Amino acid sequence: MKYICEDKLVLLGAAGAIGSNMAQSALTLRLTPNVCLYDPFEKGLRGAAEEIYHCAFPGANVTWTTNIAEALTGAKYLVSSGGAPRKEGMTREDLLKGNCQIAEQLGKDVRQYCPDLKFCGVIFNPADITGLTVLVHSGLHPSKLGTLAALDSTRLQTALAQHFKVPQDQVKNCRTYGGHGEQMAVFASTAKVGRTLLTNLIGTEKLTNEQWAAIREHVRLGGKKVIELRGRSSFQSPSHQTLLTVKAIMDGKGYDWPVGVYVDSPENGFANIMMAMETTVTTEGISWAMPKGTEQELADLRTSYGHLVKLRDEVIGMGILPPISEWKKINPNL
Amino acid sequence: MKYICEDKLVLLGAAGAIGSNMAQSALTLRLTPNVCLYDPFEKGLRGAAEEIYHCAFPGANVTWTTNIAEALTGAKYLVSSGGAPRKEGMTREDLLKGNCQIAEQLGKDVRQYCPDLKFCGVIFNPADITGLTVLVHSGLHPSKLGTLAALDSTRLQTALAQHFKVPQDQVKNCRTYGGHGEQMAVFASTAKVGRTLLTNLIGTEKLTNEQWAAIREHVRLGGKKVIELRGRSSFQSPSHQTLLTVKAIMDGKGYDWPVGVYVDSPENGFANIMMAMETTVTTEGISWAMPKGTEQELADLRTSYGHLVKLRDEVIGMGILPPISEWKKINPNL
Repeated sequence: MKYICEDKLVLLGAAGAIGSNMAQSALTLRLTPNVCLYDPFEKGLRGAAEEIYHCAFPGANVTWTTNIAEALTGAKYLVSSGGAPRKEGMTREDLLKGNCQIAEQLGKDVRQYCPDLKFCGVIFNPADITGLTVLVHSGLHPSKLGTLAALDSTRLQTALAQHFKVPQDQVKNCRTYGGHGEQMAVFASTAKVGRTLLTNLIGTEKLTNEQWAAIREHVRLGGKKVIELRGRSSFQSPSHQTLLTVKAIMDGKGYDWPVGVYVDSPENGFANIMMAMETTVTTEGISWAMPKGTEQELADLRTSYGHLVKLRDEVIGMGILPPISEWKKINPNL
Repeated sequence: MKYICEDKLVLLGAAGAIGSNMAQSALTLRLTPNVCLYDPFEKGLRGAAEEIYHCAFPGANVTWTTNIAEALTGAKYLVSSGGAPRKEGMTREDLLKGNCQIAEQLGKDVRQYCPDLKFCGVIFNPADITGLTVLVHSGLHPSKLGTLAALDSTRLQTALAQHFKVPQDQVKNCRTYGGHGEQMAVFASTAKVGRTLLTNLIGTEKLTNEQWAAIREHVRLGGKKVIELRGRSSFQSPSHQTLLTVKAIMDGKGYDWPVGVYVDSPENGFANIMMAMETTVTTEGISWAMPKGTEQELADLRTSYGHLVKLRDEVIGMGILPPISEWKKINPNL
């Protein structure tokens, strides 16, 4: 029973549904025996840790702590699902501010306690913006930090497989890019159903324009649909896909889906933002390339980018992110 | 990305916490691509299935249905976590009766739709009795049906590791036998801490008799402690340990913990019961041997057996299990 590596993996928010699932899944995937669980809520954290102990993973060294310094010291991999959920009466802005403040503190903690992380995964919403906030404050190289973006693409794959009644992995190379929110850009031109380009199916009786529009809408609202059905947000798929990204950095065997990544490429029209692009994950971290698509798809991507710019500037206005002109002073890697 | 086998694995209760965790874990463990999710509650089941689809396991063929005939037909492995939880105002007898009625129906369904199961795992409580009920009504050979008993032993391992402050898997061969309830028999004489027999530590300053009594009590109440900490029953450890049993039958690589098994051995003083014994899991199924222990430990095992006999006879009294004299007519494999 070997593990891929011995590096310390710290999971923040480990008392929560995503975090506790990640603890179990990280060990089931045999990423590393050294898993540290952190959460500010001690009682739930102890309970989550007990469950993992009762799983009795051979060779595992699972620790838990409510002390962030202890959690982060020595960590080589970090995933944080530890945002605050939206509560009754909170506005979208309240949630944005609260979670970006958590992200700011996380960035500062990473800088202080584990500046040599091989990967920092940020998966609490809005992940594009909380990820960016962690990145700026942490000083990490952009290749070492990613946000969860895959679920939009896997939801597109799921919906197309269901529509065409084919096995899910016969629908290949599904891609959504840009923000991980309702403003995402859902691409058609990358995907194939079997050997047929999706674009050759759209607008035919096999997939009418109306059906395709409904699928895109379903993908955009993908997270809401799960809440409606289960009475709770997704937690299994975020856990699994995030750990596959971690695994790809550990074993260098690649990752199939887009990751949210820092993009600063004025020549392509995108600057100082985190969003899903076409990405490659290796043991060196995450790199990105411009998505290929139709003019309309690329216009959708710019629209999604514009939405993220507004959110980012809102967070700069709150004083949680500094003005862009100061970012390099805080994080020379940007 | 290979799977251990191609056999159909059906998970009953897949909308629930244990069942939906098993769906994810079975694919993460790469047991088989062919996983069928069943639950009578369609909405939650669809939500659980969507989450698994969004995980996008390569090669997976995950189906879901609320039709038990469709679920069971062609199944080679079955795990049922699909009992009813205890609700406000229900007595213990209400719960026993309700879940044993579910077990009776499950047994009859297995007989009708999938009599050639390679393994049937029954993990809804009281599992010793629901498992026995499924076994009698299904006609399965006793080697093909097991109940979850491991968590008592892994909780003992956890508690000893915490007491001695050693890595968990340095505490070896922890064993509880008999019923999976508060009447379980917690053995000391099988276990070692490092190279030292646990029995050589009990009653010393390293582990006083009082401390050992407290640990046994903690193990007996293990499930309750998790509920107290997490506000919900264990679901991750039951899922993981059950699937490791399934895996051992699929790959023949063995299983480390006791399984609840049918025992009919009047010469040893145990007849017509299911309980945790020293078990071996191979591709042929589950076999058992008499636990070795001190006189006191074996007396505790007989006490635990006596408790199960009372429960069994209560279920016979309810008419859910026939009188023992008729069992062989219903299930010639007994």
